[in-house]
Amino acid sequence: MAETRYDVIGIGNALVDVLVSVEDRFLEGESLPKGGMVLVEADQSDALYAKLGPSTERSGGSCGNTMAGLAALGGRGAYIGKVRDDAFGQVFRHDLSALGVAFETAPSADADPTGKCLVLVSPDAQRTMVTYLGAANALTAADIEKAAIEAAKVTYLEGYLFDRDDAKRAFIKAADLAHAAGREVSLTLSDGFCVDRHREAFRALVEDHVDILFANEDEIKSLYQAESFDAALQQVRGHCKIACLTRSEKGSVILSGDEVHVVDAEPVDKLVDTTGAGDLYAAGFLFGYTQGYDLAKAGRIASIAAAEVVSHYGARPDADLKALVAERLG
Amino acid sequence: MAETRYDVIGIGNALVDVLVSVEDRFLEGESLPKGGMVLVEADQSDALYAKLGPSTERSGGSCGNTMAGLAALGGRGAYIGKVRDDAFGQVFRHDLSALGVAFETAPSADADPTGKCLVLVSPDAQRTMVTYLGAANALTAADIEKAAIEAAKVTYLEGYLFDRDDAKRAFIKAADLAHAAGREVSLTLSDGFCVDRHREAFRALVEDHVDILFANEDEIKSLYQAESFDAALQQVRGHCKIACLTRSEKGSVILSGDEVHVVDAEPVDKLVDTTGAGDLYAAGFLFGYTQGYDLAKAGRIASIAAAEVVSHYGARPDADLKALVAERLG
Repeated sequence: MAETRYDVIGIGNALVDVLVSVEDRFLEGESLPKGGMVLVEADQSDALYAKLGPSTERSGGSCGNTMAGLAALGGRGAYIGKVRDDAFGQVFRHDLSALGVAFETAPSADADPTGKCLVLVSPDAQRTMVTYLGAANALTAADIEKAAIEAAKVTYLEGYLFDRDDAKRAFIKAADLAHAAGREVSLTLSDGFCVDRHREAFRALVEDHVDILFANEDEIKSLYQAESFDAALQQVRGHCKIACLTRSEKGSVILSGDEVHVVDAEPVDKLVDTTGAGDLYAAGFLFGYTQGYDLAKAGRIASIAAAEVVSHYGARPDADLKALVAERLG
Repeated sequence: MAETRYDVIGIGNALVDVLVSVEDRFLEGESLPKGGMVLVEADQSDALYAKLGPSTERSGGSCGNTMAGLAALGGRGAYIGKVRDDAFGQVFRHDLSALGVAFETAPSADADPTGKCLVLVSPDAQRTMVTYLGAANALTAADIEKAAIEAAKVTYLEGYLFDRDDAKRAFIKAADLAHAAGREVSLTLSDGFCVDRHREAFRALVEDHVDILFANEDEIKSLYQAESFDAALQQVRGHCKIACLTRSEKGSVILSGDEVHVVDAEPVDKLVDTTGAGDLYAAGFLFGYTQGYDLAKAGRIASIAAAEVVSHYGARPDADLKALVAERLG
């Protein structure tokens, strides 16, 4: 098999996060589903933004966060996603490039600006996201470069894109290219509501195209319309090579054939903002996996990376993740 | 005298801060004056940005920070400054508006994007700033609205603008309007290097137009080409009604006629990022002053506001300043 240039290449919605603190009653007043993500148009985004307090901006996007985490751990990453050539697009591109993540997708030529995600952080550190996709909507199968996919050990797909048919086609193209080159494909389900909207298509994707699945409790239960976490867990076995099921402070379960690992969550001194927890879990696992570590060790790195990102405001690592993992794993 | 609508109206360079951590040797390698501010063109800003690590974006601009602090303390503020109608401009406008600061300056019609300041924070919490003014350059005397100036108890001028003749004319217009309406004028010298470049013009401004002066040790020594802080202090007495001279952890000295107050710095648990210390000092003082408090109390509020902003990343308050001041002043 040819040499790889990347450990992981990710395909995602390129977004800049606009982080704002809110009270729970604000979410209720706006009828926003706490902990979830809703898609809105530009005018709805602007109208909500006008009601919010002062904000902090950081590059985001679920898959972008994962690739930033992978690079911070020392992995070789690449990213496919659409920004505009505007101030937010420049920030998004800079932050990945600064970490050494290859990001070669041409900027969108549409008029829509770079997408942004209003991240509403409540006092209990939960985040509720209101996303205006903007330029991210312009990603199509034409942006999936054969050579780049073939050069990566794992192609990682962000489930949030599954709301658009163009992006679904891009996913299938990427998965087919990866498998034809003897590589593997990973998917994160991203959001329970998104799974609800596209359950059959997600199941077909998982069964036919995905080797490594990431899902939290809500998402995996929604995928199989299961009553309990355990019931969902029984169903996913056999549908993909590896399933990583995350449960916040209850830790995670990693399944692979007959192999099962129950991984504890890493202790967190002070929970500040849960944004990016799942993204960094995936970063840690995929880093360990592509380094050839066993599943238990990869899971441990995943937990350490997730614990770091929830201990501060923002969805990308602040600490030196590589040093942190070296210290914790001893 | 007519009722006021604002406690303070500020005129400044409207900028979004791009916060990045750097090592000291990076500043040396780039020949950047640690702790200072340099103005650069767009291509120089972009070239430096490309060498920097992942960043966090927050609304900034010295005077913008001051007005945000004033509003957070409960003061009534207004702001005059130029942004473009782009993503950074939207962020800047939002963050002031969200705090209730009136910001009615029309967006720039020039092609230049909203200005940005690369804020390089070193391990000792010092900040070095590299500023691309962009749209902020477009501010002229035409943007100074008579009614707004007349409606404010104090008109506050950001010394950084003094590099441009158009902005100097805007300052003189604002100062003349304010005094004609029986209001007061305040100036912050902003930067020792800026004072070096325009010493005579700054001295004339202070002597002829300024009632309340803010300066740090470097700036006041540069203004009078004085050997020592004390020598500079002797010179500034009589040149304006009130002079607030700040000295970082050594606290500040407030002079007014024969009245002198030596104000201790508020203790800081952990110094993280000194960006905005002077801006928030001015916010606290001007808030106290326009509430009619005595100079010592206004100085104490200034110290509390400055201590809050240096205890975290970014140049605008994170904590509830109003509550913090109530708690500390008892």
